[in-house]
Amino acid sequence: MKTDVEHGDFDTVGLSGDGRKLVILDQTRLPGRAVFLELDGLEEIRQAIYLLKVRGAPAIGVAAAIGLYVRANRMLEEGAASEDAFVSALRAEAGVIGSARPTAVNLQWALDRMLARAERCRGLGAAGIAAALKDEALRIRDGDIAVCRKLGEHGLALLEPGQGILTHCNAGRLATVRYGTATAPIYLGHERGYGFKVYADETRPLLQGARLTAFELRQAGIDVTLICDNMAATVMKQGRIQAVITGCDRLAANGDAANKIGTLGVAILAHHYGIPFYVAVPTSSIDFTIPDGRAIRIEERPGGEIREMWYSEPMAPEGVRTYNPAFDVTDADLVSGIITEYGVLRPPYGPALERLHATLRARAEAGEGGHHV
Amino acid sequence: MKTDVEHGDFDTVGLSGDGRKLVILDQTRLPGRAVFLELDGLEEIRQAIYLLKVRGAPAIGVAAAIGLYVRANRMLEEGAASEDAFVSALRAEAGVIGSARPTAVNLQWALDRMLARAERCRGLGAAGIAAALKDEALRIRDGDIAVCRKLGEHGLALLEPGQGILTHCNAGRLATVRYGTATAPIYLGHERGYGFKVYADETRPLLQGARLTAFELRQAGIDVTLICDNMAATVMKQGRIQAVITGCDRLAANGDAANKIGTLGVAILAHHYGIPFYVAVPTSSIDFTIPDGRAIRIEERPGGEIREMWYSEPMAPEGVRTYNPAFDVTDADLVSGIITEYGVLRPPYGPALERLHATLRARAEAGEGGHHV
Repeated sequence: MKTDVEHGDFDTVGLSGDGRKLVILDQTRLPGRAVFLELDGLEEIRQAIYLLKVRGAPAIGVAAAIGLYVRANRMLEEGAASEDAFVSALRAEAGVIGSARPTAVNLQWALDRMLARAERCRGLGAAGIAAALKDEALRIRDGDIAVCRKLGEHGLALLEPGQGILTHCNAGRLATVRYGTATAPIYLGHERGYGFKVYADETRPLLQGARLTAFELRQAGIDVTLICDNMAATVMKQGRIQAVITGCDRLAANGDAANKIGTLGVAILAHHYGIPFYVAVPTSSIDFTIPDGRAIRIEERPGGEIREMWYSEPMAPEGVRTYNPAFDVTDADLVSGIITEYGVLRPPYGPALERLHATLRARAEAGEGGHHV
Repeated sequence: MKTDVEHGDFDTVGLSGDGRKLVILDQTRLPGRAVFLELDGLEEIRQAIYLLKVRGAPAIGVAAAIGLYVRANRMLEEGAASEDAFVSALRAEAGVIGSARPTAVNLQWALDRMLARAERCRGLGAAGIAAALKDEALRIRDGDIAVCRKLGEHGLALLEPGQGILTHCNAGRLATVRYGTATAPIYLGHERGYGFKVYADETRPLLQGARLTAFELRQAGIDVTLICDNMAATVMKQGRIQAVITGCDRLAANGDAANKIGTLGVAILAHHYGIPFYVAVPTSSIDFTIPDGRAIRIEERPGGEIREMWYSEPMAPEGVRTYNPAFDVTDADLVSGIITEYGVLRPPYGPALERLHATLRARAEAGEGGHHV
């Protein structure tokens, strides 16, 4: 275990300098402490994913890929085995890692990609396969960084130096390897001296904005101010905000954007004040099969999150009824632009997303696609 | 000290059955426990106000008036004094009670009214003055109840049975003797079987909606659902809300309404969804001297309320910058109606408020006015 870091430059998930450990920033310790874990045990890798020490779809995929490589490397070090036994062992360990969060699409996608590479390398021996797996894991990691960086470039083109930017929840580097999605333009702008003033909604009930976004932006030396969700209208009215950027968990074919609860309200407020509202979304999160947001089922979570969580005293009457939707759907007509790694889409989104879908299909057929994270 | 109550029918502030004690619901114990305190000591009355065991401008005024009467009664019981000594002692005790919250306008107003009544009764002897003070205190109490009840009647005329009503913060009975301001139409509707479905915003950072509004409505047997502030847009979009009613700390002459932070955002959301947004405001909270909301200075409070309060673990990075305005100003053009004890004002509010002001002045000149709480 590495101890607290003070510097702002880190990857949320990575391979240790000696190439033998999976390194993750333990998100369950945030915001109190920034602790990096170095893992090479199968069970500790599985637990890190299961216990949300690493979270966020892209970060989980990368952690699984690097984790499986680290395991391959240790198997090699622990003694020679036949190629067959080596691949079988890898397959078994991938099953254990994949069981940590069975519904996490990126997790299985990354493990499948690793195992497919291993299969293609049969004949090179265990050492050859392990070397290929390291390459594959780093490609997956680099792919995530590249997608986020492109999101950042396209998003940054929409912004001006010195602007105030509001974001909601955490679509930050902590959910990816580096840069994040909604935060990518902010990090790139920071590298280039844009001097943004960022406002982070705390994002009740689980406080991802307070615990994660405020943490990661501050760690990077970015000017960030934490506000309660209900203060967003006031900072907009005061002229402090020139753009809103949020992430997106699932984008429908018409541009309706499902994201953390509260995003819809922020979009309406931005619309009211004439402030552009952007969603940053990697194409892997676009669901071209659903026509609009009505088809997205919203997860409803336990009321205890509102009534009790993190509090030493009850904050509401015992047993009071609550309504606790985890996500909402922001109507496409409230969205000023959709930032993807292929560029910024503008309304009307139906045709724009159709064209993007056609491009993605053509690339996949040409063997250039398949980059899921 | 009376113990927990289960029944829904109570006054937040009152005189005990034997006429010898000030009774208050201890709001510092909410929502965990509902404890009524019976007070007759000078210092315990002062402390109850100072420590916010009783809060809300109207409730504080009534508590001071009843408190001063209770003290007068005890002085009488403790032995006869000259009328002069009796009035002097009352004046001294009123000074102590008034020092508890020097900026609370209603507190001083109620004490002044009590002392003026005592002066007018010189010649009746200590017992006669005490009897007059009991009458005056109960008039102040009844005046508060009457104003809230009128707000309730006028507000209820805007609503239909079965509607969903959203409110923000606590402008409830806990801030008054009975009924509250924004909640008055809800309580009256409940008495008449309207079957409202109320949604209470939790109201970060101090959670008055969760701790107070959810408590008092539930205690009264009203159908109340607690949501986080950022869920208001979603319940509106889902068609659950047919009206929004909030209180108002200070209303400007053009109808701009300063109220708890987050009210502005709720008003914009209601406007977006075509849901009427009402503020309930006793005329004592209308400031005819300020032309619009820009003249209202917004209190900014410590960041610890966002970062730490009520939490056993830090909920944000230590030392992260925060912005914590306690109030916001809702622009008059977002307000569908202003509910006062004299009726509902409709836009344009400038002329409507001018007419109301003229009415109030005429009544004051005719000696019918002066009802401040």
